[in-house]
Amino acid sequence: MSGLVATTPRHLVTQDGLPITSFRLAASHRRFDRAQNKWVDGETNWFTVTSFRQLAINSAGSVSKGDRIMVAGKLRVRDWDNGERAGTSVEVEADSLGHDLCWGSSVFTRTVLTREPEPEEEVSDKELAAK
Amino acid sequence: MSGLVATTPRHLVTQDGLPITSFRLAASHRRFDRAQNKWVDGETNWFTVTSFRQLAINSAGSVSKGDRIMVAGKLRVRDWDNGERAGTSVEVEADSLGHDLCWGSSVFTRTVLTREPEPEEEVSDKELAAK
Amino acid sequence: MSGLVATTPRHLVTQDGLPITSFRLAASHRRFDRAQNKWVDGETNWFTVTSFRQLAINSAGSVSKGDRIMVAGKLRVRDWDNGERAGTSVEVEADSLGHDLCWGSSVFTRTVLTREPEPEEEVSDKELAAK
Amino acid sequence: MSGLVATTPRHLVTQDGLPITSFRLAASHRRFDRAQNKWVDGETNWFTVTSFRQLAINSAGSVSKGDRIMVAGKLRVRDWDNGERAGTSVEVEADSLGHDLCWGSSVFTRTVLTREPEPEEEVSDKELAAK
Repeated sequence: MSGLVATTPRHLVTQDGLPITSFRLAASHRRFDRAQNKWVDGETNWFTVTSFRQLAINSAGSVSKGDRIMVAGKLRVRDWDNGERAGTSVEVEADSLGHDLCWGSSVFTRTVLTREPEPEEEVSDKELAAK
Repeated sequence: MSGLVATTPRHLVTQDGLPITSFRLAASHRRFDRAQNKWVDGETNWFTVTSFRQLAINSAGSVSKGDRIMVAGKLRVRDWDNGERAGTSVEVEADSLGHDLCWGSSVFTRTVLTREPEPEEEVSDKELAAK
Repeated sequence: MSGLVATTPRHLVTQDGLPITSFRLAASHRRFDRAQNKWVDGETNWFTVTSFRQLAINSAGSVSKGDRIMVAGKLRVRDWDNGERAGTSVEVEADSLGHDLCWGSSVFTRTVLTREPEPEEEVSDKELAAK
Repeated sequence: MSGLVATTPRHLVTQDGLPITSFRLAASHRRFDRAQNKWVDGETNWFTVTSFRQLAINSAGSVSKGDRIMVAGKLRVRDWDNGERAGTSVEVEADSLGHDLCWGSSVFTRTVLTREPEPEEEVSDKELAAK
């Protein structure tokens, strides 16, 4: 999925030491409008993108509001109800995330990792984050 | 798709003025090995990733051999035969491409675009490139 | 996306003659739980799946509540507000849909089509359907 | 991925009792041709689709040459060399597969399963199949 970072990324570390970064993403598909005979923006889908661990740390330092990024991850559609209001949240738990080079250039600095992030562990990270 | 840039990106401009950048990408899935009780690399799939126009220009200046990137695009599986040898090439025509922030940080500089790249036009770009 | 058809599909034809079929889909990812050393159901995501034209006609006659299906299409995340209540609807406009043969067998009868459904036209179908 | 079943599916059971079904699939993207002002077939990608266990059994009884199907699974791009000739095979190991209801109707009969197919086990199935 590609889109525009619509809010300044928020970064925090839980009591258990888990880094989390999240922001709102506006993703829209281009569609060909025959009447105008050109490509136009289709509808915009809004998502909350959340990342954990090393990806959260690197995103916090690299991603800004207004950037165009690509995200891959797990979609979570959740119904919530806090007594006063109810709604549906649509989140993407990012497995990968990066700037879309269609829109600019980047200077990349590699982080030395001892171990690559594990998708399954990210699921339990999410559960930790909910505490 | 995510993977490791395995060759130094090559950049050229065709006689018609079309910028093209391409490189080989090694993409592998992680899988959980129950015997070892940990995540290990699955098989590696090799692709030639090709980009055009603004994405080609930005990729040439930003992507290096050894970088970890994400790519989204169209898969092209082509059988070829040049008389002496025959084979199958597996290419990805990139619509988007960027560094995977799981593996490092990036400083992003936006290019001022007059017009966003159009997917359909990229198809005809490919045809131009074949001349 | 794969999942379980959770409601009996509803079928209708608009005043303009557009066939529409829709139903609720429960899609969950399997994840490996190390503690139990086996695969378990992850979270369930709920979607409203909508199809148009020939796909709607065929789905209405073939898909039942309780079936396991596969869907490919466009995700639409929409915020709505009708004065009294507000919420977010998560819909999939299906481009393709069919029974998942992991779960059973099927006898397939081909419909004679004069013309294949066009993705772009489905966008304008959606707009017609909203009237 | 969607496409046309181009060969009669072949079904066999290995010495270890593993059911396997495979066939060739022709998948092409539709693209909008501005010159003709209509949607036309883009390039065709050819894949060998392979399924295992319950999916293989059900596919063998349900899928015929000429059917239009949807497939989801893992892409495997492999270089091979048998001494005389060398080439690249492009395979999809199907996790799900079914008839595309854009093209017809189906009567679905559910198989009673004791246990849902596990993706990770399919990886080791592939290894077993290679013996």
